[in-house]
Amino acid sequence: MGQTLLPKRLALPIFCSDPLSSVAYATEEILLILALGGIALLHLAWYVAAAIVLLLVVVVASYRQTCHAYPNGGGAYVVSSENLGQGAALTAASALLVDYVLTVAVSVVAGVAAITSAAPTLADHAVGMSVGFVCLLTLMNLRGVRESGKAFAFPTYGFVLGIYLMFAFAAVRMATGSTIRAESADLPLHATGDYAGIAVLLLALRAFASGCTALTGVEAISNGVPAFTRPKSRNAATTLAMMGLLSVSMFAGITVLAMVYRVHVAGDPTELGLPVGAAEPTALAQIAKASFGGAAPLFYYVQAATAAILILAANTAFNGFPMLASILAQDRYLPRQLHHRGDRLVFSNGIVLLALAAIGLIIVFDAKVTAIIQLYIVGVFVSFTLSQAGMVRHWQRELARTGERARRLRMRRSQAINAIGATFTGIVLVIVLITKFTHGAYIVVIAMPLLFLAMKAVRRHYDTVARELEVLPYARPEPPSNNRAVVLVSRIHAPTLRAVGYARSIHAESVEALTVQIDPEETRALRREWEAHEMGVPLVVLDSPYREISRPVIDYVRSLHRESPRDVVTVFVPEYVMGSWWEQLLHNQSALRLKTRLLFTPGVMVTSVPYLLRSAREQAGAEPRGAGE
Amino acid sequence: MGQTLLPKRLALPIFCSDPLSSVAYATEEILLILALGGIALLHLAWYVAAAIVLLLVVVVASYRQTCHAYPNGGGAYVVSSENLGQGAALTAASALLVDYVLTVAVSVVAGVAAITSAAPTLADHAVGMSVGFVCLLTLMNLRGVRESGKAFAFPTYGFVLGIYLMFAFAAVRMATGSTIRAESADLPLHATGDYAGIAVLLLALRAFASGCTALTGVEAISNGVPAFTRPKSRNAATTLAMMGLLSVSMFAGITVLAMVYRVHVAGDPTELGLPVGAAEPTALAQIAKASFGGAAPLFYYVQAATAAILILAANTAFNGFPMLASILAQDRYLPRQLHHRGDRLVFSNGIVLLALAAIGLIIVFDAKVTAIIQLYIVGVFVSFTLSQAGMVRHWQRELARTGERARRLRMRRSQAINAIGATFTGIVLVIVLITKFTHGAYIVVIAMPLLFLAMKAVRRHYDTVARELEVLPYARPEPPSNNRAVVLVSRIHAPTLRAVGYARSIHAESVEALTVQIDPEETRALRREWEAHEMGVPLVVLDSPYREISRPVIDYVRSLHRESPRDVVTVFVPEYVMGSWWEQLLHNQSALRLKTRLLFTPGVMVTSVPYLLRSAREQAGAEPRGAGE
Repeated sequence: MGQTLLPKRLALPIFCSDPLSSVAYATEEILLILALGGIALLHLAWYVAAAIVLLLVVVVASYRQTCHAYPNGGGAYVVSSENLGQGAALTAASALLVDYVLTVAVSVVAGVAAITSAAPTLADHAVGMSVGFVCLLTLMNLRGVRESGKAFAFPTYGFVLGIYLMFAFAAVRMATGSTIRAESADLPLHATGDYAGIAVLLLALRAFASGCTALTGVEAISNGVPAFTRPKSRNAATTLAMMGLLSVSMFAGITVLAMVYRVHVAGDPTELGLPVGAAEPTALAQIAKASFGGAAPLFYYVQAATAAILILAANTAFNGFPMLASILAQDRYLPRQLHHRGDRLVFSNGIVLLALAAIGLIIVFDAKVTAIIQLYIVGVFVSFTLSQAGMVRHWQRELARTGERARRLRMRRSQAINAIGATFTGIVLVIVLITKFTHGAYIVVIAMPLLFLAMKAVRRHYDTVARELEVLPYARPEPPSNNRAVVLVSRIHAPTLRAVGYARSIHAESVEALTVQIDPEETRALRREWEAHEMGVPLVVLDSPYREISRPVIDYVRSLHRESPRDVVTVFVPEYVMGSWWEQLLHNQSALRLKTRLLFTPGVMVTSVPYLLRSAREQAGAEPRGAGE
Repeated sequence: MGQTLLPKRLALPIFCSDPLSSVAYATEEILLILALGGIALLHLAWYVAAAIVLLLVVVVASYRQTCHAYPNGGGAYVVSSENLGQGAALTAASALLVDYVLTVAVSVVAGVAAITSAAPTLADHAVGMSVGFVCLLTLMNLRGVRESGKAFAFPTYGFVLGIYLMFAFAAVRMATGSTIRAESADLPLHATGDYAGIAVLLLALRAFASGCTALTGVEAISNGVPAFTRPKSRNAATTLAMMGLLSVSMFAGITVLAMVYRVHVAGDPTELGLPVGAAEPTALAQIAKASFGGAAPLFYYVQAATAAILILAANTAFNGFPMLASILAQDRYLPRQLHHRGDRLVFSNGIVLLALAAIGLIIVFDAKVTAIIQLYIVGVFVSFTLSQAGMVRHWQRELARTGERARRLRMRRSQAINAIGATFTGIVLVIVLITKFTHGAYIVVIAMPLLFLAMKAVRRHYDTVARELEVLPYARPEPPSNNRAVVLVSRIHAPTLRAVGYARSIHAESVEALTVQIDPEETRALRREWEAHEMGVPLVVLDSPYREISRPVIDYVRSLHRESPRDVVTVFVPEYVMGSWWEQLLHNQSALRLKTRLLFTPGVMVTSVPYLLRSAREQAGAEPRGAGE
């Protein structure tokens, strides 16, 4: 993707599957909240949708300024860190990391809902199917299957086409006098309480907060400016505008049809007079079914395209999350295993981490879009607000060093747009926090500061270690005064002979062999063999009342070190090595544990003396077996 | 549990929670199959239940003989291996391992079904709750929370009491003229096809096969004979008879009430005229609700007791599986990590393995009892049949060396009972295989031979390795002709100084330092520092075009070895060691990978030179820092 520059027609599907796909559930989320007030309050959806359209226009306009200002890519982390400092940057990073996880969970679960709406018999397997899709995406990304632009273009344009086709059908049929109703239009919708006055306002605000999911993913283009063909910034800004146009038109159209068709949805099927646990089709599925009337293949087409673009949207997070994690790891805020240095293996850790977190969410929230979406919007608006606020600061700085009047005017204009964007998204963030807090957003409100603190702690840890490892300019390598060699022995076989031979060759001040007695009979046999093979070093036998191996060895080595703290103790561990990891897995796990514990013991060097078995030698290239092996 | 011997009243709940709890779902499984034929065929449940009662009596009688013959415990693996040879023993072991997993999955899922039947709003969370319970049991068993006899006695006797109380209520109310009907009695039951002639017989056999779940867990007592108070065998046999009596009476009673109350259940709610995905209460819950009529607290009590005994039954597998795995590992059929040597840590592997397999099943089969039960019964009857057949052989051998007439007569009688048992269970095994194969049993029919072959392969591997490691009696430890020391260096810090100092002290024929160049500027700085610190050994710089670390190092070490195959190359890896595993996790992962790869390279010794950071030193007991550290 980074190699060749992208024309607008390919960049749109690559960067916009996430924001475009969110229209598949945004309308439904609005209706679900308003449904709590019964049929009487459904008309509020008109106002809520209008507010969301306005917000979408403002945010798109605001991000267009970022495209111009950051031709090298202006993600929320970069913009915040350059303009607002490390605290804001880390806050944005926490929000983004949480959001990537939620993008995967929400998109996959919504995709599965599109499938089960077309095939209701699969409704029982929503959790299994969702987990399956996440695993599939994980495997594809681990294997490095890179989608071509076309692989993105098909589902994205296919979805847009399907939705517009649906609008066309609806328009023609209604213009010719048909009255179209959704299958749920006649279901009763019982209010869950008495809503009046301020409660109505709060409900409308909560519905608005839910509908704001339509905005998720808008920032992707501003992040990907460097991937566009020249003029990069202008092309990116144009693509962003196109995306905004498509999003607004699809969201508005779907909402209008939902209202006209009288789609009734409810979080709990009993509110609709259905039995407990009854499966409901999604609002979009009901609209598509009603719009196409008898044309069932088109209905199935829309469902398939919806599922495809949603799964694709999840896939974008599989690229974004490891990338951001890598940047954070480079800045030493995350473990260095997440820092990607051209080595695919390292990139994998991020992919697996993302998948596990998303699977956890899917299982805990039982593959319910509505439940997971409560967590989604906080992080999105935290990063929106920080990013826009950062842009206001950015223009302020630019203004300070620009004298030219025309350019200053343009900058003032951009700054004003970003200021409006920051204000709007900031207000929405407050609304979301207030209305969603008890419905699940509190989880994110807890998780984000924890992530923030964890990243701070990781950074502090790396800084401390770096300081501790520093040496003064006059420091010189110093050999230890004495070296005492200890060979670990369990029985006499080829690796033991090799280890004893090697230990005797390093000119240590003393050499001894060490065994742990589990069964006195076995130990007596070992002693007899020890003499017979003329091992040439004394055999020390340690008692182990609890049949443990590690503890007596560690205690003995510690006591040697305590006798003369200026010496080192070199422990030789004979090991046998197999050709394949699964053979290896059948052996030596206790040796591995013991070696790890020895590393934690002061004054100890640990030497592994590997003995390659036939399978390992064959793999190593079947070299002739010398004394060195 | 092994320390104090168990009186019968405690042994019954400890060993019998599994077989007693299975009556909670056995009746329902029969009705679910017969429901496929519609209301017309439901009356077949009478015959099917009668056959199962007969089978239960035969199997209990047969296992009583095992209690007498194997006072040290006669599990299917032990009996098969002593009487039928290793092939049969491994077959039994495969069956038992699979069954332990299924016991956990089925019992937990059935326990959750008991809960969701009392609280239908939780029905959507069956998968999450089931996985949660498995995790809870895993944690309890990992932490080594051992249940006292009382902890077992409460749920088990509580369940039996609840069921009998339910019978009493039903009897009194019906005797006083009430007509009791289940809530589902009026739901229509649509046949899924036309059942006539042979199809009816096959359906009845399939229902019988499903109902045989009532027998699962019967063998537990024969396994636990040594835990009984003296006379062990007689007490065990008596307890087994008591268990049989309880099982038969509860199963028969529940089935009678299900028929009288006209409980209608179906695998697919649409067969009952309910919408897709509607949650159904379990048959037992319907019976309890109907029996107790207005006495709702008693209904909730029965559901709670049912859930409790089922979760307890799952817990027994958490003891049995690691125990059997340990025995198999001792016989070298399973990886030695599963062999339990008084070390709890090792036991844990079995617990985690069992939990992961059970969770996998629960997710794949969406926490549906009926779906998982299709896999359950094959393994049970494989081990039953092998165990009973083994007993027939056992008595044959005993007869051959006994002259006394009275004892011979008793043996003949036991042999006859076991022969009947083996014949019956063998026939049932065939019925189960035929009727259940396409419904899921094929998975077990594939899994068992795979396990069998895997265990054979593990044994063969261990035998091969043992032969390869053997040394001839005249073998002596031989030092390598030359030792070339190589110190890995990335930058100059305290661990590097320590490693170079140590490497220079072991009297190797040559010492050099090795670094991989990622950035030429960094390398130049390293060289300058190298001179300034008078390291005293030459610094070799390796190029790495792909920014890899491991490969250039491995290639260089290989080339050294190829130059003189009779030498050894000792690679010194400076490492820094933290006080806690999570700190350690933030470092050194690439060093660990490199060390592992070096072990696989012929002619290489790997010496870790640990440098303990402050946190590690504090943990190691804050000893004074000497040169040895």
